[in-house]
Amino acid sequence: MTKNKISKLFKIKYPIIQAGMIWCSGWELASAVSNSGGLGIIGSGSMYPDILRENILKCKNSTNKPFAVNVPLLYPNIEEHIKSVIDLKVPIVFTSAGNPSTWTKQLKQKKIKVVHVVSSVKFALKAESCGVDAIVAEGFEAGGHNGREETTTMCLIPDVVNAVKVPLIAAGGIIDGKSMLAAMILGADGVQMGTRFVACKESSAHENFKNMVLKAKEGDTSLTLKEITPVRMMKNKFYQEVVELYKTNPTKEKLLSKLGRGRAKLGMFEGDLESGELEIGQASSQINKVFTAKEIIHQIISEFNGIKSQMSIANKFNF
Amino acid sequence: MTKNKISKLFKIKYPIIQAGMIWCSGWELASAVSNSGGLGIIGSGSMYPDILRENILKCKNSTNKPFAVNVPLLYPNIEEHIKSVIDLKVPIVFTSAGNPSTWTKQLKQKKIKVVHVVSSVKFALKAESCGVDAIVAEGFEAGGHNGREETTTMCLIPDVVNAVKVPLIAAGGIIDGKSMLAAMILGADGVQMGTRFVACKESSAHENFKNMVLKAKEGDTSLTLKEITPVRMMKNKFYQEVVELYKTNPTKEKLLSKLGRGRAKLGMFEGDLESGELEIGQASSQINKVFTAKEIIHQIISEFNGIKSQMSIANKFNF
Repeated sequence: MTKNKISKLFKIKYPIIQAGMIWCSGWELASAVSNSGGLGIIGSGSMYPDILRENILKCKNSTNKPFAVNVPLLYPNIEEHIKSVIDLKVPIVFTSAGNPSTWTKQLKQKKIKVVHVVSSVKFALKAESCGVDAIVAEGFEAGGHNGREETTTMCLIPDVVNAVKVPLIAAGGIIDGKSMLAAMILGADGVQMGTRFVACKESSAHENFKNMVLKAKEGDTSLTLKEITPVRMMKNKFYQEVVELYKTNPTKEKLLSKLGRGRAKLGMFEGDLESGELEIGQASSQINKVFTAKEIIHQIISEFNGIKSQMSIANKFNF
Repeated sequence: MTKNKISKLFKIKYPIIQAGMIWCSGWELASAVSNSGGLGIIGSGSMYPDILRENILKCKNSTNKPFAVNVPLLYPNIEEHIKSVIDLKVPIVFTSAGNPSTWTKQLKQKKIKVVHVVSSVKFALKAESCGVDAIVAEGFEAGGHNGREETTTMCLIPDVVNAVKVPLIAAGGIIDGKSMLAAMILGADGVQMGTRFVACKESSAHENFKNMVLKAKEGDTSLTLKEITPVRMMKNKFYQEVVELYKTNPTKEKLLSKLGRGRAKLGMFEGDLESGELEIGQASSQINKVFTAKEIIHQIISEFNGIKSQMSIANKFNF
């Protein structure tokens, strides 16, 4: 029996959580990750209520292991999503992008484990005070929506560990066994990886987007649209248009109008690499091949254990 | 005899390098770090040529261990600084903020080891092609001047390791034994710490600034002035004025005029916490007490070795 706090909390083999990502993480990815010993998450932010219910049912049919649903708390039909996860007995819910005081108590009363995603010590303290079972602390390098503090994983993890007592999951820039080990040495009990699973075989991201992730280099992403909700994306044509717009000192309304509706779907799900919004983390530069979820988890654990066992004899660590 | 590449290259005991910082790292700090087994660096960016020579001579009188001088390549009297380090037989030079092709060859001909500081894979490749002996890769979380790519230490280190063959020193967010170990697991051969040594007893930073560092919390720094040279600083009154100025869509000239001359000296050396520019990294949130350089190095190595030896039996790492 594992003594790792995150493995114990979720009843999973490895403390590796696949992030709930819009347009990428439906039941196929979530069940594949859970079947491989991690925790798969259905990303409900891009799903209508009936689609979410369908994904939960299909996920239940595809794995007998624990899985979770990510619910962005600013989702317009949030009540319906909350009802779905309760009705369909989803064992774990990750909440993000909103106030954890609104739903945590109700979910916990239904014996659902609740984890909240934060990007600062301030929000970690708030989440803990709301009674969450664990916290995801997500650094500036992470893809998709992000915090305003711009604190990186390297700095955020030690700060959050010092501030709270609940188990901590690190996110942002974690992509393989060595970054997983590094994050855990910094104080995390487990890790969450989003970018790593975008170009996974079972991800529902469009093939064009997956291919773009494989080619991404260091410096190819940027955190922008801070006046709306900060979001890290590929520096594609749409991003360059946003950069041009910023030169005109735009109002928040102009930025919102430029973003428009459906841009993330257009890029990530429909494969329009020019006009779409392509949410991805800095660590995309390190992904060069599409693997199955099972292969990814195996590679991570194998590298993690390899470094751990070699460290006491490795030349560079001994002086 | 150590087999760590950085310890071997510099003939030092521990692969811990104290960053050359304007207004903080004169001969007192550099010699104290070198005497404690790390590599101390004199930060010449804030020194007139005669002051640098005085600092080099005093450093030589205070330690028989290797030490270095950091030379920002955009320094106006760079020829005089280069002449000083050659004439006074400084064994190691760290260059930063400029083109490494200009001086590397000349310094190497004088048997001086040359290390260049970069913030991206692109500049790491360039530095390597210029023949440097090692590279410092500095992440977005680092204090002071920084790159435009905003790549964090967690992502930059693996990317640079994959791109170059020369020994690699990680910088940005590294503050103690656990972050040092994390950076080395990510691929670095050694670490450079700036922020950690600002509030060191031997640092020449003003006491007011040191006290501010001790009180700093997560989120208290920001990277700004990207149109001039990106710089991470405390969010003090001067920073807030810059934020206000940005709301007016200022020209580069207006930003330069706001910055003015001598602001870093005013804040960091003279202790004006309101009007001064206070350069510091995100990891300042983790510093709570002033220690001597010797105590800091001892704490780092003790924590580093402690985690390393406990890892194979620690509950959380075994599953």
